[in-house]
Amino acid sequence: MRRGRASETGVGRGRPGYAREDVLLAAVDAFNAAGYEATSMGALAVRLGVTKSALYHHVSSKEELLREALDRALSALGGVIDDVRSLEGSDMERLRLLVRGTTLALCAEAPYVTLLLRLRGNSEVERSAMDRRREYTRIVAGLVAGAQADGDLRADVDPATVGRLLFGMVNSLVEWYRPDGELSAEELAALTGKMAFGGLVPRS
Amino acid sequence: MRRGRASETGVGRGRPGYAREDVLLAAVDAFNAAGYEATSMGALAVRLGVTKSALYHHVSSKEELLREALDRALSALGGVIDDVRSLEGSDMERLRLLVRGTTLALCAEAPYVTLLLRLRGNSEVERSAMDRRREYTRIVAGLVAGAQADGDLRADVDPATVGRLLFGMVNSLVEWYRPDGELSAEELAALTGKMAFGGLVPRS
Repeated sequence: MRRGRASETGVGRGRPGYAREDVLLAAVDAFNAAGYEATSMGALAVRLGVTKSALYHHVSSKEELLREALDRALSALGGVIDDVRSLEGSDMERLRLLVRGTTLALCAEAPYVTLLLRLRGNSEVERSAMDRRREYTRIVAGLVAGAQADGDLRADVDPATVGRLLFGMVNSLVEWYRPDGELSAEELAALTGKMAFGGLVPRS
Repeated sequence: MRRGRASETGVGRGRPGYAREDVLLAAVDAFNAAGYEATSMGALAVRLGVTKSALYHHVSSKEELLREALDRALSALGGVIDDVRSLEGSDMERLRLLVRGTTLALCAEAPYVTLLLRLRGNSEVERSAMDRRREYTRIVAGLVAGAQADGDLRADVDPATVGRLLFGMVNSLVEWYRPDGELSAEELAALTGKMAFGGLVPRS
């Protein structure tokens, strides 16, 4: 959230909340564009138009930025999981909510989720985030299996693979979604829902 | 091509075709794991268990490997486009063939297509490959629009977005597909076809 002008040094001295958000987003954009390993704190300072020491005044390390950015993506997705778990309804209804909620979360936090999806497991921070991503995958597979058992989805397909493909579709949004694009997040959530659950082909 | 000293160390002495394939695949695996920029020819030589000069005997530059790897991915996908163009049938039938053919091509050339999909446009070689990827996206959007005009797909959804999401699903295969995995390429092609065209939800 923007609270006002940054200080004369740029990195929001006296307004850490404002600066922190800017620093984090700039870092994530740099990580997504050039890769985490290839982005130095020096390059990040240049990108922000501040000195390296001004940057280190707010951030102890590049890894701290990575951890914070991944936490943000995982919190958004974790919120969706919480909503899905507290929904009274069938597994198919839960799966629909998961597709919808994930689409909205991806649109709201696109740069952060992009970073999460591109992890290669090169450090403990990355591996820990990947573990939580895999937990998501297991939840999806469980809901697909439940919907199959209820007769709401074909039972002759592997639930884990269906789950991966469904969320492969949803996750691919981060490659091209722009907040100022033609379709709103709500319109995209309606579309991913249709595509996931057969609503795209007219029923005869 | 740069001609280095004859290799004493076994980069395909007497089997240049065989060696080339090994070098290319090792390079692509390294690019996918650590990123193209972060992979040096020295690191690649270590990975292959050869000296750097032996590697340069076969390959003039890292960029040559990148170009060759991307050509391989683009040829596989271009072959699918050719098949689709020569198919006598409706746009919906062409779209089905495109989903099926792309799934099979991705499974057959997974490491190469992974590299293509992860491009960031950091060089002329990358940008040229990305142009051809975008052409693919335009062909998909055209087929979706045609299928909509024929009443085979709902007409109230944006064809370009539907195309991106469809192929976002198909492309996501490269993140987890393994040739020795539980599902064969053919089974996966049947599954992506079902998922793309509403076959997953039983019709009542």
